[in-house]
Amino acid sequence: MTIKANNPALSSWIDVEKNSDFPIQNLPFGIYSDNQVNHHACSAIGNYIIDLYELANCGFFSSLNLNKEIFNRSSLNDFIELGKTTTRALRDRLSVLLDGTNKELQDKKEIFNQIFKLQSSVKLLLPVRVGDYTDFYSSLDHATNIGTMIRDPKNALMPNWKYIPVGYHGRASSIMVSGTNFHRPKGQMKPADAEVPTFGPCKLLDFELETAYIIGKSTESGESISTEQADDYIFGMVLFNDWSARDIQTWEYVPLGPFLSKNFASTVSPWIVTLDALEPYRTEGYLQDPKVFPYLEYKGNKNVDIKLEVAIQPENKEETVVCRSNYKYMYWTMEQQLAHHTVNGCNVNVGDLMGSGTISGPDPSEYGSMMELSWKGTKPLKLNDGTERKFINDNDTVIMRGYCQNDKVRIGFGECKAKLLPAN
Amino acid sequence: MTIKANNPALSSWIDVEKNSDFPIQNLPFGIYSDNQVNHHACSAIGNYIIDLYELANCGFFSSLNLNKEIFNRSSLNDFIELGKTTTRALRDRLSVLLDGTNKELQDKKEIFNQIFKLQSSVKLLLPVRVGDYTDFYSSLDHATNIGTMIRDPKNALMPNWKYIPVGYHGRASSIMVSGTNFHRPKGQMKPADAEVPTFGPCKLLDFELETAYIIGKSTESGESISTEQADDYIFGMVLFNDWSARDIQTWEYVPLGPFLSKNFASTVSPWIVTLDALEPYRTEGYLQDPKVFPYLEYKGNKNVDIKLEVAIQPENKEETVVCRSNYKYMYWTMEQQLAHHTVNGCNVNVGDLMGSGTISGPDPSEYGSMMELSWKGTKPLKLNDGTERKFINDNDTVIMRGYCQNDKVRIGFGECKAKLLPAN
Repeated sequence: MTIKANNPALSSWIDVEKNSDFPIQNLPFGIYSDNQVNHHACSAIGNYIIDLYELANCGFFSSLNLNKEIFNRSSLNDFIELGKTTTRALRDRLSVLLDGTNKELQDKKEIFNQIFKLQSSVKLLLPVRVGDYTDFYSSLDHATNIGTMIRDPKNALMPNWKYIPVGYHGRASSIMVSGTNFHRPKGQMKPADAEVPTFGPCKLLDFELETAYIIGKSTESGESISTEQADDYIFGMVLFNDWSARDIQTWEYVPLGPFLSKNFASTVSPWIVTLDALEPYRTEGYLQDPKVFPYLEYKGNKNVDIKLEVAIQPENKEETVVCRSNYKYMYWTMEQQLAHHTVNGCNVNVGDLMGSGTISGPDPSEYGSMMELSWKGTKPLKLNDGTERKFINDNDTVIMRGYCQNDKVRIGFGECKAKLLPAN
Repeated sequence: MTIKANNPALSSWIDVEKNSDFPIQNLPFGIYSDNQVNHHACSAIGNYIIDLYELANCGFFSSLNLNKEIFNRSSLNDFIELGKTTTRALRDRLSVLLDGTNKELQDKKEIFNQIFKLQSSVKLLLPVRVGDYTDFYSSLDHATNIGTMIRDPKNALMPNWKYIPVGYHGRASSIMVSGTNFHRPKGQMKPADAEVPTFGPCKLLDFELETAYIIGKSTESGESISTEQADDYIFGMVLFNDWSARDIQTWEYVPLGPFLSKNFASTVSPWIVTLDALEPYRTEGYLQDPKVFPYLEYKGNKNVDIKLEVAIQPENKEETVVCRSNYKYMYWTMEQQLAHHTVNGCNVNVGDLMGSGTISGPDPSEYGSMMELSWKGTKPLKLNDGTERKFINDNDTVIMRGYCQNDKVRIGFGECKAKLLPAN
């Protein structure tokens, strides 16, 4: 399938800097608010957000037969629910309106300020209402690193790891949009040399570099989604920081998995980059050995080459990039994760969020968490301001970024950032 | 605090059988539909449901200053969101209208059929939209039994078990109301003696006898709820069957906990019995040793004496009660669970559902799952129809019931039941 809006030859009449995350080939979706607007759906180009409600108001989507109120909601769920035929047509139409050779919108200078606002002047909100949130654990290097550190280097991977895309349910209520700060969580921890646990602010607060995909089509209980159908059920992707309190996690996670060590906050980037926009960056996946069960087999290139980085910015200091990784390192693809998640008949809903799990690459500079980067705190990282980090300090801001780049076009995700406030 | 509607001396002008779950002292909340009604909020008395929207329409709640449309929704969330002062006043008002000494409603014979419908003639729907679902693991006997079976009888409990109310996040999308049947899930299993896993319909399908409570008041991220405040945040309770595929669970649950073994279906009873109505049945809790951390300490009687039973009904056969347990056996109280869940600042929302975990008593007849009742399948149960069960067979219906009884009043939950259909 050719996706019209992805055409690398397109160039917009809106000025887009060379390294912008938002060229005309991206056109992600989000929700914004400002002094005038409570919540409108929007897209992005260059430094601007594009108000989709106002575009609809001005009749620019009349050919699409949409209820414009769908853009006047506090989330994109109802829009996404319309289905890919419609959301794709909308993205194509946006692409036409922004194309330098098209004059329809370009010539209407009097409405420019009604449609376009500087992204820096608005507040981007959580783009979807997340019903259920699942987090996978699908990076081979991450699982191997963690297994090596906390269990046995010779048997770092659990016996199930190469058979099933291991995952668990997370807490949807505490998913926050980028820019939402939160307090260091309190909880129980048991130092390895202690007889009994202690209670207090966690000491080992970590980020986890992840992406997530947003479900674009619901299923009924009892239905399964095949790897072949999966892309039809995935609307798009975001960056995701699965904040983790390592010391709380170590004490609580046996036998039912992480709970309070994760559910205090997860940060999501505000723009959903459509799966369509990511198609040009698909790349080959891992050779999976042992061979997977038939319901997990897939055809074609299903990994995605998304360059990822994490920076730590101490209060009032410059940032330091501490990790550069890539989504292509995933052992299990999104399509396999979704096929596995539903093979038992578990139903999914529009807006559900599926996290990748920490994305680590093979090189130590590519590790996606402080746990790995500082190797359990044994190798502190030096920051540009001269200080050291084993884990995240109070008032540190953690910033994740991601983008795809080929020889023609670069499209990005914007930032996923949040500041860790002291325990309250 | 005296709760007026609990007055044991009250008696309704509606006929209520002696063993009914729904005397005038209960007045639970639910949502129903029938040929005339898409979804109205309702309560119950004797064999009838009480249409709250129609009661509001007829002006019977005019003193409460409510927007009657709150009863014309597909869930109780907006009603519950009004807060306990309002929902309590509504239940009190219902209690007055149904009281035998009051004539307001009793004398309006012409509207009886508009307000009252036989419960057997309507469909009861899922009472709340569950945002997040958490399941705890708070029965000492259950945790001890499972630990004894699958780990080490001498160290049956994990070291953390008596320090923290262990819990994990479950899947909200697959919570179904009583009466919704579902198919046996498929998945990966690895028999103990096999080298590699197999794929197919699960063989060890189990129920878990639980209750759950519904959150009645939301918090913001960063807020914690103390054990003392907790009751104010709990709207009421339901019966809950946390269906479990034991063989899928054994293979998948390390290290992140249960996932596909649980998220295919959970069955909830349709009536939310208010925490107010349960107050007369509060009872003493476990002596907790070791002493818990201050944030988990509580005062007063916080367990609840709810008699519970589970029956298995093979297709077209009579049922057999296979377990009689009691909610009073919980080691960790609801108030402790909620204090723990939020001590790290995790926010909760109205409609969130918190499962108790399997409720087993000390006697083998009180075990709350087939895993325990048949001791891993080694002691099959004999049913009344002469057949045996180690786990649940295709086309078996599992029925859970629960009620509180003191020397004056019995209030119940109705049934929580579902039939296991063959794998599809």
